Amino acid sequence: MQLGLVGLGKMGFNMRERLRKGGHEVIGYDPRPEVTDVPDLAGLAAALTAPRVVWVMVPSGDITSNTISGLAEVLGEGDLVIDGGNSRYTEDGPHAALLAEKGIGFVDAGVSGGIWGLAEGYGLMVGGSDADVEKVMPIFDTLRPPGPREDGFVHAGPVGAGHFAKMVHNGVEYAMMTAYGEGYEMLAAEELIKSPQAVYQAWSNGTVVRSWLQQLLAKALKEDPNLAEIRGYTDDSGEGRWTVEEAIRLRVPVPAIAASLFARFLSRQDDSPTMKAVAALRNQFGGHAVQRIHKSG
Amino acid sequence: MQLGLVGLGKMGFNMRERLRKGGHEVIGYDPRPEVTDVPDLAGLAAALTAPRVVWVMVPSGDITSNTISGLAEVLGEGDLVIDGGNSRYTEDGPHAALLAEKGIGFVDAGVSGGIWGLAEGYGLMVGGSDADVEKVMPIFDTLRPPGPREDGFVHAGPVGAGHFAKMVHNGVEYAMMTAYGEGYEMLAAEELIKSPQAVYQAWSNGTVVRSWLQQLLAKALKEDPNLAEIRGYTDDSGEGRWTVEEAIRLRVPVPAIAASLFARFLSRQDDSPTMKAVAALRNQFGGHAVQRIHKSG
Amino acid sequence: MQLGLVGLGKMGFNMRERLRKGGHEVIGYDPRPEVTDVPDLAGLAAALTAPRVVWVMVPSGDITSNTISGLAEVLGEGDLVIDGGNSRYTEDGPHAALLAEKGIGFVDAGVSGGIWGLAEGYGLMVGGSDADVEKVMPIFDTLRPPGPREDGFVHAGPVGAGHFAKMVHNGVEYAMMTAYGEGYEMLAAEELIKSPQAVYQAWSNGTVVRSWLQQLLAKALKEDPNLAEIRGYTDDSGEGRWTVEEAIRLRVPVPAIAASLFARFLSRQDDSPTMKAVAALRNQFGGHAVQRIHKSG
Amino acid sequence: MQLGLVGLGKMGFNMRERLRKGGHEVIGYDPRPEVTDVPDLAGLAAALTAPRVVWVMVPSGDITSNTISGLAEVLGEGDLVIDGGNSRYTEDGPHAALLAEKGIGFVDAGVSGGIWGLAEGYGLMVGGSDADVEKVMPIFDTLRPPGPREDGFVHAGPVGAGHFAKMVHNGVEYAMMTAYGEGYEMLAAEELIKSPQAVYQAWSNGTVVRSWLQQLLAKALKEDPNLAEIRGYTDDSGEGRWTVEEAIRLRVPVPAIAASLFARFLSRQDDSPTMKAVAALRNQFGGHAVQRIHKSG
Repeated sequence: MQLGLVGLGKMGFNMRERLRKGGHEVIGYDPRPEVTDVPDLAGLAAALTAPRVVWVMVPSGDITSNTISGLAEVLGEGDLVIDGGNSRYTEDGPHAALLAEKGIGFVDAGVSGGIWGLAEGYGLMVGGSDADVEKVMPIFDTLRPPGPREDGFVHAGPVGAGHFAKMVHNGVEYAMMTAYGEGYEMLAAEELIKSPQAVYQAWSNGTVVRSWLQQLLAKALKEDPNLAEIRGYTDDSGEGRWTVEEAIRLRVPVPAIAASLFARFLSRQDDSPTMKAVAALRNQFGGHAVQRIHKSG
Repeated sequence: MQLGLVGLGKMGFNMRERLRKGGHEVIGYDPRPEVTDVPDLAGLAAALTAPRVVWVMVPSGDITSNTISGLAEVLGEGDLVIDGGNSRYTEDGPHAALLAEKGIGFVDAGVSGGIWGLAEGYGLMVGGSDADVEKVMPIFDTLRPPGPREDGFVHAGPVGAGHFAKMVHNGVEYAMMTAYGEGYEMLAAEELIKSPQAVYQAWSNGTVVRSWLQQLLAKALKEDPNLAEIRGYTDDSGEGRWTVEEAIRLRVPVPAIAASLFARFLSRQDDSPTMKAVAALRNQFGGHAVQRIHKSG
Repeated sequence: MQLGLVGLGKMGFNMRERLRKGGHEVIGYDPRPEVTDVPDLAGLAAALTAPRVVWVMVPSGDITSNTISGLAEVLGEGDLVIDGGNSRYTEDGPHAALLAEKGIGFVDAGVSGGIWGLAEGYGLMVGGSDADVEKVMPIFDTLRPPGPREDGFVHAGPVGAGHFAKMVHNGVEYAMMTAYGEGYEMLAAEELIKSPQAVYQAWSNGTVVRSWLQQLLAKALKEDPNLAEIRGYTDDSGEGRWTVEEAIRLRVPVPAIAASLFARFLSRQDDSPTMKAVAALRNQFGGHAVQRIHKSG
Repeated sequence: MQLGLVGLGKMGFNMRERLRKGGHEVIGYDPRPEVTDVPDLAGLAAALTAPRVVWVMVPSGDITSNTISGLAEVLGEGDLVIDGGNSRYTEDGPHAALLAEKGIGFVDAGVSGGIWGLAEGYGLMVGGSDADVEKVMPIFDTLRPPGPREDGFVHAGPVGAGHFAKMVHNGVEYAMMTAYGEGYEMLAAEELIKSPQAVYQAWSNGTVVRSWLQQLLAKALKEDPNLAEIRGYTDDSGEGRWTVEEAIRLRVPVPAIAASLFARFLSRQDDSPTMKAVAALRNQFGGHAVQRIHKSG
């Protein structure tokens, strides 16, 4: 089928390629002239045959909101917009309402798979009405990995459900990575263990902890056995923060996910103010020596 | 090759079957007459041709120690014992030393895979000398899943390294299960999500969080979508406790694994004494109502 | 000085009493006729001499917002409103702006001390302009405990700073209570310890952990040594949730506060969905027995 | 009464002074000639009148064990040894048994208060038989703070109970310090707050979180408002590690104490191997940039 695709970055560029290989006609728009197929959103709308379907694949937040507002200007009754970016699910309702004023449908799609999706397919979690989701199904079927549809795609519920499921996916991902990280750190700390890499490699088959992430860590450790070249500094793009915030709203205890989020915050601090306070306290009551920061003069 | 196998319970019984299918001669001993091949350990020793190799697959702790002591009596110079149970790795050194007095070798083998190992093969993490491990390699190669040896087997280091790696494996397993559990709880709590099962199922392909455990949870949720029939009560067989203890010895922070262990402790309490104290405190300072336990009578 | 006081519940009633004892003229309004001094907000405004100062001490959320809107109707240029309730600090800005339209000033005041404040004085954390805070100082000085002003009162910053400081106070309070709860649970679990109460009592002088909460727990344990009469069920009034949410916004790792919040959520669950999922997983891979919930038929 | 005191370091030296001021005859032994009253343990035994009472105040572990072994050589039937150091409570039983062979009694005493104990008195938690504890009561009554005995002293149970109670005290102390640290970090991160120090100072009276540690942190922040001169690096002397280990033995969930312990471990790492693994994983699946450690060439 025909699809407009806004955003041809790391994710969108690959998706266009996978969709074209799958036989779809994809017209891409991106502000960078070297990759775009049309000059602007109006050009995109003009190039598509109504009823149009446009997939938005841009950074979450203002850029997504502005893109959707822009599409509301150039699309019309019967058209459909899919937000495939990492938007917070709470933004889906307002986006859907804005588009609905013009008779434009809306579907939110959480997309997992990163740079591997081009070759292996993307895991998809979508939200929207049955009718709207049905319209995009040929696209979803090409983007998702081959095999049974229900193993790589879920219509999770009404508008917002797709991004909510993707947010939880990322929260779980945070905690799984921490789990593997803690396991790695213990193996690396214990002198009996010759090679943490070999242990992680051996977990690939037959074990309870085998997974795609386990294999990726084995691969990363093969490239750099002591991770000597890599800093622990770890950014976050929001989903982990949102997961803990939504867990609080839902009164769901998430100690493993929260620990993983806090570990990221810590990884970005030069020194922990909390531990400065603890060190200061120990010095106050016990006369325990503290490590002072000497300023050169 | 020929192997003596002590312990024909859930694990040992299946292993005997897998090994026999793989062409090995397995002579099993178990106190239960209906499954044993020989009447006792002496009978086992007599039925094996020297140099004998005996795999011990019995519950960890005293039963394993007593079995190894018993084998030290009936085996001799040049024989070899493998402890394939979930022994704490700190027990491997003493076991090896006891056997070494009689010239008997020792290998510790962490075995993962549970009831699925019979069909799919077991993930193996072993510790011991190169020579000792080499002797048992035909057995390991049959027990482990097919494919490259390093993807389902690791000679992790000297005596103790196998059980240490298996202990860490189980610690990681705890945290992964908590991660998936937290994700499930959030999906179940959010009314936008039609079916947490369908989301877990859809994570099977293409997503970052895909794993064997993820698929097992999708399967469990298919059988009982709200887990309505299952209590949260969760026992532990020691490896999680040992993992946190060893992490403390190694000064490795393991917040996700520890949170998972504590969640198990909590799951076995009727009420939390910690939270009773918190409720009592709130009542003391704020006059906050507490829920009192009324005794009938 | 003269003060209008809206809300004569558990806190407001006591505060009126403390202020009157301190020589202030307090005119209270409450919808309950048996405690109110005036029939309604208009009556309150009429009874006060301009420039009027009105303290709002009602439940946070809609009730506070509605009260402040109501006051904006009946007060005028040069008057001042103090919100002494447990409002989220993010609501202070909008409240201040609404009042500013009428030339009415605003101060937010976090008030700690619970039912003990009447006799001992209240710990106060306030936000607002220097001029506005100065106007209420005679009230603050009577409400706060005797002694140096800076030991029981802080002008923490502009509008919002008082409630922010109070929110953090409550987050710290959560974690302290968990700390004491964990200590109690360990003492109660160890058979060497004759009386956890006696240990908590003995921490009253000389120890590092001595505090008001420690003494309250000693008192609570004296009344009910095993807390046998009290459930662990623990409600929360929002400040703990807000603290973790603001910590996330500020990228501050708060593992102890978050653990305390999650423990409250858990205390209100009949069974943990997370642990149901873990139990289901263990059953799937290991054939570990689960505790099934039998329905009577 | 007369007391032998072994160990005249930071704690023992001050205790000797407090006891002498209280009218006791204290004969101190320390390997450092400039502080000792006698040349060696034999000299100490000779200088004391039977039945002798000797207080051991040396670092826990081998030094304490060796001291107690040494005392077993020079003391005799009817004498009594008190271990006032921070020994792990599991060592008390063996120490008591060793001394009992010579008819020497044993009491374990947990001592809290740090450098403040000289002036304010020490919080005491002791274990032993009623008869043995009674013998030392005049010493305990001088060491503890003035006021009711039960507010600064507890005979917690048989041998080991004193050190167990002190260990739990320190575990609680860890979590309280983390609680205050987290609160400080939030106040410092929020721009509305003019002075975190002023907030901590204002918590001294009337608030729920007031405590000795709160006042010490206010004091530390007065000396160095941004803790700019102090590193977060925080050592541990064992009690926190033991607390978590004993919690695991007792199946008591201690998330706040464990989080505090792990925070100390983290504070001593240059970089977190766990977070290196997480960063490596994000790079593998998402192409997320990692911060590489560039080696100068």
